[in-house]
Amino acid sequence: MLLNDYTTAIEQTIATTQYGQSPIELYEPITYIMGLGGKRIRPLLTVMATALFTENWQQAVRPAVGVEVFHNFTLMHDDIMDKAPIRRGQPTVHEKWNDNVAILSGDVMLVSAYEFLTEVEPAYLKAVIKKFNRAAAEVCEGQQWDMNFEKRMDVTKAQYLEMIRLKTAVLLGFALELGGIIGGTDEENARILKKLGDAVGTGFQLKDDLLDVYGDPGKFGKLVGGDILANKKTFLLIDALEKATGSDQEELQFWLSPQDHHNIEKVQAVTALYDRLGVRQTTEAEMNRYFEEGFEYLKALRIADEKKEVLQDFFQNLIEREK
Amino acid sequence: MLLNDYTTAIEQTIATTQYGQSPIELYEPITYIMGLGGKRIRPLLTVMATALFTENWQQAVRPAVGVEVFHNFTLMHDDIMDKAPIRRGQPTVHEKWNDNVAILSGDVMLVSAYEFLTEVEPAYLKAVIKKFNRAAAEVCEGQQWDMNFEKRMDVTKAQYLEMIRLKTAVLLGFALELGGIIGGTDEENARILKKLGDAVGTGFQLKDDLLDVYGDPGKFGKLVGGDILANKKTFLLIDALEKATGSDQEELQFWLSPQDHHNIEKVQAVTALYDRLGVRQTTEAEMNRYFEEGFEYLKALRIADEKKEVLQDFFQNLIEREK
Repeated sequence: MLLNDYTTAIEQTIATTQYGQSPIELYEPITYIMGLGGKRIRPLLTVMATALFTENWQQAVRPAVGVEVFHNFTLMHDDIMDKAPIRRGQPTVHEKWNDNVAILSGDVMLVSAYEFLTEVEPAYLKAVIKKFNRAAAEVCEGQQWDMNFEKRMDVTKAQYLEMIRLKTAVLLGFALELGGIIGGTDEENARILKKLGDAVGTGFQLKDDLLDVYGDPGKFGKLVGGDILANKKTFLLIDALEKATGSDQEELQFWLSPQDHHNIEKVQAVTALYDRLGVRQTTEAEMNRYFEEGFEYLKALRIADEKKEVLQDFFQNLIEREK
Repeated sequence: MLLNDYTTAIEQTIATTQYGQSPIELYEPITYIMGLGGKRIRPLLTVMATALFTENWQQAVRPAVGVEVFHNFTLMHDDIMDKAPIRRGQPTVHEKWNDNVAILSGDVMLVSAYEFLTEVEPAYLKAVIKKFNRAAAEVCEGQQWDMNFEKRMDVTKAQYLEMIRLKTAVLLGFALELGGIIGGTDEENARILKKLGDAVGTGFQLKDDLLDVYGDPGKFGKLVGGDILANKKTFLLIDALEKATGSDQEELQFWLSPQDHHNIEKVQAVTALYDRLGVRQTTEAEMNRYFEEGFEYLKALRIADEKKEVLQDFFQNLIEREK
């Protein structure tokens, strides 16, 4: 199956990449975080998009890994800023080493991402770097909004959706667009691929928000209810804040107040509130709107329909995933 | 005078650049740090190098500013790592805002540096980005070595010189090489420009080390003796550690010991030790070797000698500077 070939090629490139020799404090954390795994969604999107337009999908593998390196750079720096101790079940880089190592290793990772991207055809390089610059800056903007929202109680759904578009979706859009460009497609298809990635990327983040509350504890990789315990302003909480009145509103405010709550009690109570307020349904409807928008863009791509099936199935699997 | 024109063009570009709109926490610190001034040595080197080969030096201004943006990005992140409160007489970004803002603004600055560099002729872009990636990674390596050396007492002169080559010199080398490439010169001249920058860059750092001890307090911008108070392993201290024996060695170890010393007493005593041991002469001789090497490369450049005068004078001024 093609998807397995893509995954194998990506994993092999990641496993054999030497980011640098010394000092070891600078390069070991890069190998470490890249080795923690993950779904490799972004590089897969790039390679799949290239394969839509050419049989030579191999040429996309190294630039695709550049996108994954960039993604992991953002995780390394975000984890410092969020003081996160655990990433994919293992200690974060700033925990295992220290903040300075995580800052500087991350900086080198960003440089390394550009180095991978220089391997596209020279004719495409300027466009690729400029589009990547735009996406990279937007990801940083999204992270800054996310941090700003922590201190605010008045975040609207529109603001939240724009934040996750910047922080998460635009890089999926770039990954697909990059693949299209490498595959030699025209500007119109590249533009559609970008919008496709932006749409499903936003959908996937809403899916993450839902899984954090409604995921099966046995299957979900992280602690169910983590967002609730952190009072994270997800789409679900914003919807609940909008909907709750009277005693529901009072109860929600009680659980959001900074006093010492019992963890399990808080997760159960807020989840029950979400259930009462129909938060799950509203969020699922919003998420499905993004997925439908994405599938509309997939339809609009001017290539043979059977070529679209790999992407279609890939998205469907992510939509139905339980972790 | 040409140098004034270059400076004006660089300052004007810096003053009018909009790095982004919102969130304001992300972009305000970039304008802030870029506005703190400095000698703008790196962008001037780029523009001067372009002017060696073409009258159209203006085409080098924006890429040159990219090098300055990169340089200031490294200052922003280094200041977090070094917990430095002051930069060019003003609060550092992590002091004025906070660590997270300085991390994320710095990340966007690195992206912005690449955006400026995309403005070189497309034919040169791949070479420029790859050379920049190399220099950028080396600057990070230099910073990591510098931090590692803080915890070590066995740093050799060779290791110190390699550290300052990475942390400081290679970017001056890149700045000159970039200018040559933009000016359309051949690979041989570009290679010589790189070596020229690496050599004088190392010399300038040794000059900085000397000024920190022997600078005129009335002219030197920073506190004279700052490196001595911080036990910073500069070329001077390494030389003193190599030379000191008997009671000199004991006295040096006493002042380096972590007990509470009187600041002025410590600076005076260590300076007197340096004087006794001939540290200044040894460091000046080493520095002059680098400057002479640099001037040899300048001679080796295959262009008319009168063209070299602007660079020659520029270096001479930096060599004779008192701050």
